Amino acid sequence: MSVENRNYAIVLFSGGLDSTTTLAIAKSMNFNIIALTINYEQRHISEVDASKLILNDYPDVQHIIFNVDLNKIGGSALTDPEIDIPNNLSEDIPITYVPARNTIFLSIAAAYAERFEVRDIFIGVNAIDYSGYPDCRPEFINSFESMINLGTKSGVTGKKITIHAPLVKMKKYEIIKSGVEHGVDYSKTLSCYNPSDDGLACNACDACHYRKEGFRIAGIDDPTKYKK
Amino acid sequence: MSVENRNYAIVLFSGGLDSTTTLAIAKSMNFNIIALTINYEQRHISEVDASKLILNDYPDVQHIIFNVDLNKIGGSALTDPEIDIPNNLSEDIPITYVPARNTIFLSIAAAYAERFEVRDIFIGVNAIDYSGYPDCRPEFINSFESMINLGTKSGVTGKKITIHAPLVKMKKYEIIKSGVEHGVDYSKTLSCYNPSDDGLACNACDACHYRKEGFRIAGIDDPTKYKK
Repeated sequence: MSVENRNYAIVLFSGGLDSTTTLAIAKSMNFNIIALTINYEQRHISEVDASKLILNDYPDVQHIIFNVDLNKIGGSALTDPEIDIPNNLSEDIPITYVPARNTIFLSIAAAYAERFEVRDIFIGVNAIDYSGYPDCRPEFINSFESMINLGTKSGVTGKKITIHAPLVKMKKYEIIKSGVEHGVDYSKTLSCYNPSDDGLACNACDACHYRKEGFRIAGIDDPTKYKK
Repeated sequence: MSVENRNYAIVLFSGGLDSTTTLAIAKSMNFNIIALTINYEQRHISEVDASKLILNDYPDVQHIIFNVDLNKIGGSALTDPEIDIPNNLSEDIPITYVPARNTIFLSIAAAYAERFEVRDIFIGVNAIDYSGYPDCRPEFINSFESMINLGTKSGVTGKKITIHAPLVKMKKYEIIKSGVEHGVDYSKTLSCYNPSDDGLACNACDACHYRKEGFRIAGIDDPTKYKK
């Protein structure tokens, strides 16, 4: 790709339930998809494996894996192996919060958007059934969009970048129903913060909690493979 | 460091004229400095060597080098070896603009700020004698500060992050005069976009142009080693 193409979109894609649903929604809007997976040396590295497995179902999606070592920065249970993953829901922002993660991810997505002259970026953040991360809220997404259009050549030359967060105000069961309508195979997605080496979900972390509840309320069989 | 410390600051530090002056200014404000050099596989990799050399003069500064491969994204003469560095000043945003670079750099600095519970980040951007990059302007810096305080745990828990850009409205000669007052040894800094393998400045790119003019107007001998 070397010319501006309004029909291409970049989707931040972790291989989890939310980002896979987001990818399916973007496809349903007739965008050609560039799926951008950030390998940040997270302890649940099987995310990257899940992202590849899922994209077998979407042969026309281009896949970019970009490495950035957030382990070096640390400060989160997801990036520091010395910090345990909590097994209970927290009232506060939990220790699984990764410092500035979505800001870094969206910044890298914006760099690719400029490179490929793409104007649409999708991210599967959700501020309803979620862990309370500040960088999953609509006010953050809106602020990022304003900022990036001041800080990029695209933005200041009138080719504004739009950040789409289609799930941001949906409940988890609504996300799952939407994904099923769009043909998502949730047996391949991985949401767990602490999966086993063979990719089984822990059945204890925040992400497992919200996922299980979502399937239950949606009245859809949960295809997730949990540890016994 | 494991406790919040208002007296620490993170300085984005490339080893160039502007960021070295910024480091000296931050030191003069009695901050303890963590210098953060982003190795983005830029073609002028001797920046990283310059940053190490300069910090020999500042033994109490902690130095972090963080790698992020913006070459993989490309789209700039600084990150794509196929694109030549221009030898003339441009009216438009020039091809040396690196997509979303300062957004990515500030995002990584913000992650470190959260990790170390530091609330002050310095960046040596300048919007007067500069190459017209959108991410060097005060409106971008202000917008980034608003965004990051919505998108981080620090920001939403009342420990707001401040982005300091002390050079943003200074002319290049004023920056140089300020640096000399603060004891900067400019013979060690490297600003050139296209230095020789042994670190000589090209004497032709935008950065060399502004640097030479700055020393001339300041009435200070230019210690830069240029190619013949």
